[in-house]
Amino acid sequence: MEHEESPEALIPLFKLERVLNQDQNGKRGGPALCLAERAAFPSDEEALTEFHSALVNVKNLGNNDIYRWYMASSRTTETSPPELKLNLIYPCTEKHIKKYSPQEVRMVTETPDIYKNLVRPYMQRMREEGRLNWVFNILEGRAEQDDILLRAKGQSADGQDEEFLLMPDLNWDRKTLSSLHLLAFPTRRDIWSLRDLKKSNIIWLKEMKEKILDATAKLYKTIERDQIKLYVHYQPTYYHFHIHVVHVMCEATATQAVGKAFGLENIISQLECMAGGPDASMAEATLTYHLGTSTDLWTEVFSPLKESTKD
Amino acid sequence: MEHEESPEALIPLFKLERVLNQDQNGKRGGPALCLAERAAFPSDEEALTEFHSALVNVKNLGNNDIYRWYMASSRTTETSPPELKLNLIYPCTEKHIKKYSPQEVRMVTETPDIYKNLVRPYMQRMREEGRLNWVFNILEGRAEQDDILLRAKGQSADGQDEEFLLMPDLNWDRKTLSSLHLLAFPTRRDIWSLRDLKKSNIIWLKEMKEKILDATAKLYKTIERDQIKLYVHYQPTYYHFHIHVVHVMCEATATQAVGKAFGLENIISQLECMAGGPDASMAEATLTYHLGTSTDLWTEVFSPLKESTKD
Repeated sequence: MEHEESPEALIPLFKLERVLNQDQNGKRGGPALCLAERAAFPSDEEALTEFHSALVNVKNLGNNDIYRWYMASSRTTETSPPELKLNLIYPCTEKHIKKYSPQEVRMVTETPDIYKNLVRPYMQRMREEGRLNWVFNILEGRAEQDDILLRAKGQSADGQDEEFLLMPDLNWDRKTLSSLHLLAFPTRRDIWSLRDLKKSNIIWLKEMKEKILDATAKLYKTIERDQIKLYVHYQPTYYHFHIHVVHVMCEATATQAVGKAFGLENIISQLECMAGGPDASMAEATLTYHLGTSTDLWTEVFSPLKESTKD
Repeated sequence: MEHEESPEALIPLFKLERVLNQDQNGKRGGPALCLAERAAFPSDEEALTEFHSALVNVKNLGNNDIYRWYMASSRTTETSPPELKLNLIYPCTEKHIKKYSPQEVRMVTETPDIYKNLVRPYMQRMREEGRLNWVFNILEGRAEQDDILLRAKGQSADGQDEEFLLMPDLNWDRKTLSSLHLLAFPTRRDIWSLRDLKKSNIIWLKEMKEKILDATAKLYKTIERDQIKLYVHYQPTYYHFHIHVVHVMCEATATQAVGKAFGLENIISQLECMAGGPDASMAEATLTYHLGTSTDLWTEVFSPLKESTKD
């Protein structure tokens, strides 16, 4: 391959050797590396109709109730292996359409004042509406007890209650270890979110972290401690502090996205570096994160703030 | 649409109405919902050769040093819009091949001492090996100048050089705004990674942040400031500080995953809350992140550390 060729001329020249990796972007390698990626689907009306009418070799792989899935080709590529996977939901409801439509999301900046005066009261309302009953049912042994993988007891070196439950996340299939997703729930109720974490919680957090890593590695023998990723959400879905425990190879989806997920160890380190005494807390940090515009927190707090700051 | 049709028969029957969502899986909607997804690339030798020889309409979008990027079609789909995006790296090194091969990943904890004594010297070696030439080519106007979206000049209120370049990320198709991905490169060279950020950089960082948000919203009129997410990688691929600028609706993939991506605003806030004077810096924090086991940083630094701490 001549180094000086025009860029276009290089493409036919390189010799394919092997596939390095196959993911959302299929990638091809060799002494020269060529990364091939499917472009986005065209989305205008005409292209859609064209795409639709060009579907051939539609092969059904299975169906269940209103759900059906297929492999297919577009007429133009009939000869090559089917390059399309189709799921058909019929009849479908508004819920289905909503689920697969983009939820609008906005970045918000939550200063210590906004937290104290607006978000914290919102959290309180959420807790008082009984939204946490299902969590307390679990913590107090009234529900989902069969799902509890571990109930760790004890106190941290500085005497804080270190009891926590380890449970599978609802979205984990409970067998694929490479997508392991557990949740750790401390039973103490004074910590609603990472905002409540203080310098005085550092020892407690570090010891709980160690217990979670040990327990997970012990429960799943093939998983080592350094294959486990720990993070918390802000905003979380509910205001009882809980830690996400996932396999480090777990596909990084929205649940792990920066702007929503905060690494537990990095929160601990942030507390360690923080100015002030034992009561210095994450409530003093300005947190920037993204928020769905269909959430109450957006409509009640951040949307009005945005309007009010517009000139 | 008849509910009782055979699954295959249903596909031609439903009428396309609109695209609900567009991501790595293009999705189509209506009273029936059809999710269309590109199948994985075939990866056997024969299919590869076929794929390669079928490439047509290869259009070069740009090139810099050993990197070249293209749009292309496969002969079979010549008539339809180009459905392939190609990146060619030539000549490429073992490092490139490693980077794009599937990697085992481990969590590592980088204490201030490990950073100072082991990681910082590693960064220095990487910089001295000329790995940054392509960045300096851009910063100094020798390459990719057509791709530069903005060259912001000026100084921050406290007199720090605030010049930076805004460019499209290699992986952005440069038209789908919902997957907008830009990179901001400060021209100053004293900041290798987020580890070099000090309290004394807070004003500089905040002003650059504002400039990036303003510039992006100005370049892409339909994007508002609060639809832009800013983050940096640790470890980054190269050691010249750069900021990822993405649309908040951009599908959250590994590039945004907690344990790799750190929100820019939250780093600024972490610096603000940090104990110490103007020189207090991110170098004093313990950072926990994930790292591929085929990286030099793993084999040279963290793997030996792991071995040495085993009982």
